[in-house]
Amino acid sequence: MSSPSAITIRRFAPGDGAVLLAMVRALAEDHDLAAHLIASASDFDTAFGPDDGRRGAFIAEVGGKPAGCAIWHGSFSSFRGKEVLYLEDLSVLPEFRRRGVGRALMRQVAQECRTRGWASMFWVMMSSNGRGRALYEGLGAEVDDGLAWCRLRGAALEALAT
Amino acid sequence: MSSPSAITIRRFAPGDGAVLLAMVRALAEDHDLAAHLIASASDFDTAFGPDDGRRGAFIAEVGGKPAGCAIWHGSFSSFRGKEVLYLEDLSVLPEFRRRGVGRALMRQVAQECRTRGWASMFWVMMSSNGRGRALYEGLGAEVDDGLAWCRLRGAALEALAT
Repeated sequence: MSSPSAITIRRFAPGDGAVLLAMVRALAEDHDLAAHLIASASDFDTAFGPDDGRRGAFIAEVGGKPAGCAIWHGSFSSFRGKEVLYLEDLSVLPEFRRRGVGRALMRQVAQECRTRGWASMFWVMMSSNGRGRALYEGLGAEVDDGLAWCRLRGAALEALAT
Repeated sequence: MSSPSAITIRRFAPGDGAVLLAMVRALAEDHDLAAHLIASASDFDTAFGPDDGRRGAFIAEVGGKPAGCAIWHGSFSSFRGKEVLYLEDLSVLPEFRRRGVGRALMRQVAQECRTRGWASMFWVMMSSNGRGRALYEGLGAEVDDGLAWCRLRGAALEALAT
């Protein structure tokens, strides 16, 4: 029997799409980006249901309740010349913060990285994310500020491609 | 017969690893990051030789000479719930700049994105990269500053995974 506050991590299982969506929504709301969230629960079931070795999601539970998630996929580093791991999202639901859930998820992702023989994992965060920075620097991550996120979509993408 | 200044774009072909490495090196030197470049030409031949649909590289030529490259791979957007395109590198050799090579490469990548049915492409740049910003904003890209790049590798990665 696990204690009520025990943290367990499991892989995404078919039907977990709604759980994952709730966590991505919590993350989006934290960053005032909820208007950009257009994913559906079934999108996640489609993307993470089959384990194709290219991407995956971990769900953290505290006392058996969903508490957080980590979403990752393989990336390619041109400086390294090899595959590395990209951490797309790390989210902990507000009521489960400050209990080590984020750290437990980061550890699981680091193990995934090592299992695959990838020498590095990377992610992007907002420089203003102090809670994230404290966690990541505490784990020995290098954090380099001064970056910009660039995106081309919709009419601009269509115009360029035409 | 093409004019001496005609820009042509082709896909990476077996043996192009050395050409690609020279371009990634130019990019690394531009950003004072050459010390971090550990990829070899054969790494690129291994990664981009077989077309697995997950990643690719385009080589731009001007008058038949290698002038620039774009390296991309598939990524997953948790906000969109679908695959999108990630542009890992865009590089134009110094002597071929200001001739539209970067724009031609971006157009090719946008076409790749559309061909695959992906609704968005994204990339990360240093906020201080004024030349890149001018190009990208001119193409209608959204550029959001205030981001940090985070990386875990070596002893810190090993310690977390253990």
